[in-house]
Amino acid sequence: MSPVSPHFDVSERPQCVLGVDPGLNRTGYAILGRSASGPVLREGGVIRSTADLTLAERIHELGCGLREVIDEFKPQVLAIEQVFSTSKFPKTAILMAHARGALLFAAADAGIPVVHYTPTQVKRLLTGSGHASKEQIQHAIRQELKLEKVLEPNDVADAFAVALCHYHSMRGIVLGSSIDNR
Amino acid sequence: MSPVSPHFDVSERPQCVLGVDPGLNRTGYAILGRSASGPVLREGGVIRSTADLTLAERIHELGCGLREVIDEFKPQVLAIEQVFSTSKFPKTAILMAHARGALLFAAADAGIPVVHYTPTQVKRLLTGSGHASKEQIQHAIRQELKLEKVLEPNDVADAFAVALCHYHSMRGIVLGSSIDNR
Repeated sequence: MSPVSPHFDVSERPQCVLGVDPGLNRTGYAILGRSASGPVLREGGVIRSTADLTLAERIHELGCGLREVIDEFKPQVLAIEQVFSTSKFPKTAILMAHARGALLFAAADAGIPVVHYTPTQVKRLLTGSGHASKEQIQHAIRQELKLEKVLEPNDVADAFAVALCHYHSMRGIVLGSSIDNR
Repeated sequence: MSPVSPHFDVSERPQCVLGVDPGLNRTGYAILGRSASGPVLREGGVIRSTADLTLAERIHELGCGLREVIDEFKPQVLAIEQVFSTSKFPKTAILMAHARGALLFAAADAGIPVVHYTPTQVKRLLTGSGHASKEQIQHAIRQELKLEKVLEPNDVADAFAVALCHYHSMRGIVLGSSIDNR
């Protein structure tokens, strides 16, 4: 049995969280496991799409890649960053939302619930500050996962950041108020 | 054998085109068949998502609905309008792109190629003018499909418009230069 403290019920945390940093060219993913001593890195990687294919074929590559990750690790939940702004790079935001749609579809198709976190929530959960820098986030991930060096590439680190955010935001409820419809 | 004219090779046209007008709340679809006398309406309908579910669950409903339509009618191609602008309603555009991503994934997963047309291409193909009004488009659809009255609701009519656009833009090549990566 997992150790249980009155303040922090580790036993209620998911055994396996899939974190995703979506992008049309590259989608980073993180498989975060749970041990008695805290969260552990099980696998991290990048799912790539082929640049000269059509949009439908590219997002199909991403969704199928995620499907394979889900089949292999059987995560209980997928954690992903919420999309907000389209103002700076509207075309990029629209293409990313297509990729995100295919990834969410693949997760739902495999029966995996999806939780969304804002970038501020991720930063605050990991560092205590909603305005943390990339370096502070990297440092927090390294400490949390007891890594010898900083995680690379960036999309894999970002996928672990959102997975860790979900891991730490759990207080005995696997799916709580952090779920919204974005 | 289908009749063949030197100018217009009807026999090369797809037997069945699936037109889609994507939306998160409602996605219109059109099944357009081919007959010796021209295009025929086989079925039109709306796939709805449940408003109080999460985004992942909603787009899963849409993708699964499209999967059922594809399983039933076995179309050779999916025709859909291209998304351009995010400036007026950025949140709506992002949500629609998620829905579109799930729909394109479902089509690619079923092995159906996807072709995209701009609103101007659809209008020009159907009416001769890239600035045609909704009413002119409706009139063109009604004439093309020899319907007694105007097609309703709007999302089904729009799905038939893009399906007809694809039908008429074919000149012996099922998948030609009209495919792009959006």
